[in-house]
Amino acid sequence: MNFQLPKYKQPNFDQEPFLSAPDARIVVIEIDGVAPEHYHALSIYPEYFKINGEWILASESRMDGVPVLKTDGTIQVVEFRNLRVGDKVIVGRTEDASEGIYIYAKGFSSNDTNSDLFAFRSGRSRETAYSMDYDKLYKLLIHERNNGYIVWVLGPAVVFDFDSRQALSALISNGYAHAILAGNAMATHDLEAALFGTALGQNTYNQQSPPNAHYHHLDLINKARQAGSLELLLEKETIREGVVYSAITNNVPMVLAGSIRDDGPLPPVIADVYQAQDEMRKHTRRATTIICLATQLHTIATGNMTPAYTRKDGEIRPVYIYCVDIAEFAVNKLKDRGSLEVTTLVTNVQDFLVHLKNNLVSP
Amino acid sequence: MNFQLPKYKQPNFDQEPFLSAPDARIVVIEIDGVAPEHYHALSIYPEYFKINGEWILASESRMDGVPVLKTDGTIQVVEFRNLRVGDKVIVGRTEDASEGIYIYAKGFSSNDTNSDLFAFRSGRSRETAYSMDYDKLYKLLIHERNNGYIVWVLGPAVVFDFDSRQALSALISNGYAHAILAGNAMATHDLEAALFGTALGQNTYNQQSPPNAHYHHLDLINKARQAGSLELLLEKETIREGVVYSAITNNVPMVLAGSIRDDGPLPPVIADVYQAQDEMRKHTRRATTIICLATQLHTIATGNMTPAYTRKDGEIRPVYIYCVDIAEFAVNKLKDRGSLEVTTLVTNVQDFLVHLKNNLVSP
Amino acid sequence: MNFQLPKYKQPNFDQEPFLSAPDARIVVIEIDGVAPEHYHALSIYPEYFKINGEWILASESRMDGVPVLKTDGTIQVVEFRNLRVGDKVIVGRTEDASEGIYIYAKGFSSNDTNSDLFAFRSGRSRETAYSMDYDKLYKLLIHERNNGYIVWVLGPAVVFDFDSRQALSALISNGYAHAILAGNAMATHDLEAALFGTALGQNTYNQQSPPNAHYHHLDLINKARQAGSLELLLEKETIREGVVYSAITNNVPMVLAGSIRDDGPLPPVIADVYQAQDEMRKHTRRATTIICLATQLHTIATGNMTPAYTRKDGEIRPVYIYCVDIAEFAVNKLKDRGSLEVTTLVTNVQDFLVHLKNNLVSP
Amino acid sequence: MNFQLPKYKQPNFDQEPFLSAPDARIVVIEIDGVAPEHYHALSIYPEYFKINGEWILASESRMDGVPVLKTDGTIQVVEFRNLRVGDKVIVGRTEDASEGIYIYAKGFSSNDTNSDLFAFRSGRSRETAYSMDYDKLYKLLIHERNNGYIVWVLGPAVVFDFDSRQALSALISNGYAHAILAGNAMATHDLEAALFGTALGQNTYNQQSPPNAHYHHLDLINKARQAGSLELLLEKETIREGVVYSAITNNVPMVLAGSIRDDGPLPPVIADVYQAQDEMRKHTRRATTIICLATQLHTIATGNMTPAYTRKDGEIRPVYIYCVDIAEFAVNKLKDRGSLEVTTLVTNVQDFLVHLKNNLVSP
Repeated sequence: MNFQLPKYKQPNFDQEPFLSAPDARIVVIEIDGVAPEHYHALSIYPEYFKINGEWILASESRMDGVPVLKTDGTIQVVEFRNLRVGDKVIVGRTEDASEGIYIYAKGFSSNDTNSDLFAFRSGRSRETAYSMDYDKLYKLLIHERNNGYIVWVLGPAVVFDFDSRQALSALISNGYAHAILAGNAMATHDLEAALFGTALGQNTYNQQSPPNAHYHHLDLINKARQAGSLELLLEKETIREGVVYSAITNNVPMVLAGSIRDDGPLPPVIADVYQAQDEMRKHTRRATTIICLATQLHTIATGNMTPAYTRKDGEIRPVYIYCVDIAEFAVNKLKDRGSLEVTTLVTNVQDFLVHLKNNLVSP
Repeated sequence: MNFQLPKYKQPNFDQEPFLSAPDARIVVIEIDGVAPEHYHALSIYPEYFKINGEWILASESRMDGVPVLKTDGTIQVVEFRNLRVGDKVIVGRTEDASEGIYIYAKGFSSNDTNSDLFAFRSGRSRETAYSMDYDKLYKLLIHERNNGYIVWVLGPAVVFDFDSRQALSALISNGYAHAILAGNAMATHDLEAALFGTALGQNTYNQQSPPNAHYHHLDLINKARQAGSLELLLEKETIREGVVYSAITNNVPMVLAGSIRDDGPLPPVIADVYQAQDEMRKHTRRATTIICLATQLHTIATGNMTPAYTRKDGEIRPVYIYCVDIAEFAVNKLKDRGSLEVTTLVTNVQDFLVHLKNNLVSP
Repeated sequence: MNFQLPKYKQPNFDQEPFLSAPDARIVVIEIDGVAPEHYHALSIYPEYFKINGEWILASESRMDGVPVLKTDGTIQVVEFRNLRVGDKVIVGRTEDASEGIYIYAKGFSSNDTNSDLFAFRSGRSRETAYSMDYDKLYKLLIHERNNGYIVWVLGPAVVFDFDSRQALSALISNGYAHAILAGNAMATHDLEAALFGTALGQNTYNQQSPPNAHYHHLDLINKARQAGSLELLLEKETIREGVVYSAITNNVPMVLAGSIRDDGPLPPVIADVYQAQDEMRKHTRRATTIICLATQLHTIATGNMTPAYTRKDGEIRPVYIYCVDIAEFAVNKLKDRGSLEVTTLVTNVQDFLVHLKNNLVSP
Repeated sequence: MNFQLPKYKQPNFDQEPFLSAPDARIVVIEIDGVAPEHYHALSIYPEYFKINGEWILASESRMDGVPVLKTDGTIQVVEFRNLRVGDKVIVGRTEDASEGIYIYAKGFSSNDTNSDLFAFRSGRSRETAYSMDYDKLYKLLIHERNNGYIVWVLGPAVVFDFDSRQALSALISNGYAHAILAGNAMATHDLEAALFGTALGQNTYNQQSPPNAHYHHLDLINKARQAGSLELLLEKETIREGVVYSAITNNVPMVLAGSIRDDGPLPPVIADVYQAQDEMRKHTRRATTIICLATQLHTIATGNMTPAYTRKDGEIRPVYIYCVDIAEFAVNKLKDRGSLEVTTLVTNVQDFLVHLKNNLVSP
């Protein structure tokens, strides 16, 4: 059986409490970047606001973002720092329509193929049986490859091992990635592996550390800075394999966000973290499935800006999030946000990636 | 390239310090179960003792065991509790031949295909590149299947998941196991899965907990106690798959050691832990490769009694130990014993088992 | 404010569904150690059984134990292995009185000072705020010292460090322990520290490993076996401090349960794990507070046999369980049993013990 | 005994191989931010470069930084991104003086009070005996309070708990902090606790989550943005306690570095991560002791830029780094950099902070 998207069921606004609910209250911004008292902050769920007697779904959501009514009648969700004087912000902190605000957490639940997961959420650990989760993910990715927007969120550990780096590259080359969110380290060590065979100085296959190999990542960064861009670096050094190579040659956009841990950095790394958030959100807005591997920083950053649903081809559909990490604490951090659609797997991402390649990419 | 066993190089006893070394000193036991002052305790390495001018290799080793000279001239390694009045114990705590005792840690090192691992031992973690380790293990197991003695040490988590339980059963049925060391829980939940589809009440595939499923493992144990043996249980309940079924039908001996955590227990579980040690040691004595999965208790117990070498067909060869667990702390516990031959993988045993099946068992 | 025990409120059996409920069904055992079909297994909560029209509270509880009606009219809870031919076992797997069986999970809830914990149970982690838990525990222990029965469940790590070993010894000497459940390793390394200053060969204060210190624990065990008992060992070696010393001199009983990991063992260690369970249960039956430190094996074994309530001086009162471990996975194992009364702290037991001593023992 | 700083012993350059070593080779930068081929990258140790026949110690160090010879004859250590056209970079990748470059790892070793730690470095875990480490740290901090520069590197978990937040505030108020490096979250939740009693919506003492408390951190950020600075926020909201309050009122500089996880952010948070690195390095340059608590991101970032030594009042002395985290993996990340002076403690930072306060701050 192929993957079936659950249908979204719109609330029936032709009944109470919706009919007699008041319009949502609106306050105009007076200081750039500062919300008014009692501003509303969004959840990850679809939220409807009553405007001139009509219930309008926010164009999207973003946890802790602020709803702003635009002149075209749409409701956009804006981060504090992006609020501007004159913006019309919806205020109110109820969710039951009594202030014209309605949070709708159960839009997919009747047909939700994942609804049975709910009872077990709190118990997922290294000892959870993952066979079904793998099988569902394989079907989901085959569906999303052509009908969705798959975003990968990658920590550097995905390129430390030979087989898993190959597996990830193959998945990208075979259409299973539409965008990549990562940092300086993932790209650096992937290119280091392409050029020197090492990641952070250690060979990705034989585990050996050649003499002066601790210079490899610095040399790679220096060469990239000299080349001026990753595209020029690939050309100049004739790099023909790896995650960065597969992404660039398959036109898969990469957002590389800077962090205070960075050496270098590589040319395309975004130094300003809030600008980086804006670039990341361009992809999480379109995302239908997100796969987060071995990075707390980027996973939580992505989770913060990803709603439980998205619009795709005019339809409202769930966003599926997978989070894979070897530590329960790390995956629970994301799960605690309360999304039904986060599936966590507690394992080594190396094995996870090889399983995906084995099941999705023909040899 | 197939797997090549490293050759053991005997020390050259025709030179100093061996020639002028004294005979090892021997003291006779006076109290059952109590060693004399300054008794020698063995390491995991080959140890030679000078007896009547001749260097004799202990018949085997067992960390912290005591060397006893037998009337047939062999040196057996005996646990404290098994020492008997009249036993001739070798005393001395040096290892450099100066007291007629020589510990030989480098017998395999010149040809040792693993010798390059040494430098990285302290650094193995979730981020170690495991591709080479997997490849070596596949080759090793193909070799050992017919030429060695493969012992599996199993925690209950190996049967909690559908795919990995199937994978392990297939490995056993295809000759990749010569003995199994485990506890009451592993066998109980495997048989629970065979009979009810659940492990500790949760379905191994769909993760659901049917009503009253927390009775399943108790009912299974009760049925087994009624049947009187696992063999009779399999017959009575027509169980035709799983780890226990595969082991029994393929004549793979299982030692099930009791613990204070046990419900029941199942009929063959050994209540006396020191008797259980004796039964386990019968297999570790013969073991050429040991694979420990997701159990600290049984892994450390097994590690304690397993030397770095064994005799097989008259030859001295290394014993390979693999330890797979999702926690660095757990695998380091075993590694800290100082054996060069322990290879640790930090991952979920579910994925590990499926990889092994994919690479070793034809579909 | 001092510690206040919550009051137990008996169910009102003078109303439905209790009045019209049938008597519980009873089946007589026909094979030693085997329960009848549909036997009832107990939970951790108070359970009432209707016998001859009267609702009788089981004399105690023990998760997964079987209720047996005795000739004196009491209901005892018996492990499978202890069932004997002729025992009258209550059968039925409902809990709502419809088969004469009633599980009563809310006996303490109205006055329960811990009831607010419930909402946060699933979220306890290294990041939980523990200040209140510490404060409550200090008050609780002051109350229990004279009015309760405090059982400590100890992994060997409690004696690896100088300050925490001193702290634990002081708590015992000052009346804060009524029984100790542990294994061979805890007692061995405590006595090793007393005699040699090391635990598993490493100095408990300066972290150094003297030459041949890996013999220390073996020598200690050997001396104890020679002495014949721990009491004689203390005398012979003039040991005057430590956990074992404090327990023995203050008449705090210790149950040392054997495991397959053991060296030796020490004289009082119980080789048969089911006999060890019986000895442990003698103390958990009386326990009013249990503190489990850094041992999964003994903690889960103890948790399995400890109910949520006990009778103390004719009153029914809660049993408080504390579980302290550095790994969320370990503490969650116990918490998953569903007891409201388990309080988990994710930290190093060294710091926990020093805090307790600082707050409970005057310098 | 009070704390004694180990003396630094300068290498004796009046002997070989120093005398006949050539001058270090210098290449001039041609592209901003790009190093020449074979540039030298620094370690954490003191490094000497032969310039015009004289061995000059780099003014400081910074792992992976590049040595630049200034016109005043000093050697400064510069990050790639800060290299400018015309800079004179030292090239060469040996460390034994053969290219005029000498790395001196043993300057403190003869008198090093920590030298005994070396043997145990690879084995530090939750089971390490920490009593001595605590005692040394207490003495060290008493010394450094008046004679050093103590830098705290703080994850948000330090303010989640009532007692530990109070303890940290007291340490700051009593002179035990000279600078704080942290992120948006630590400051936000500390101020949230001051204003609302909660951290991320949960009460820091009673663990309860009041209704709509998930708005608290957003409201706090919004108020701070409105106030325009943390100083004005403290005044406007009459906040009189906490980490931020103690830092500001005691003139302890705080560097708050931005990350992609941030909400808000608070006014003083630095959006550009490389500018944040520059600000952080101003303090690590002066640091004599660094204490890193419960943050991988900031700890590794700080570790990357901190050398093993510093100049203080004209003398060269060691920099002591402490790293406290509940996960071995986290503390090992920092330890793997190879510094003798990193002391790791595997525990909950809550308990660590309360211990420090108990031992350093009079009640």
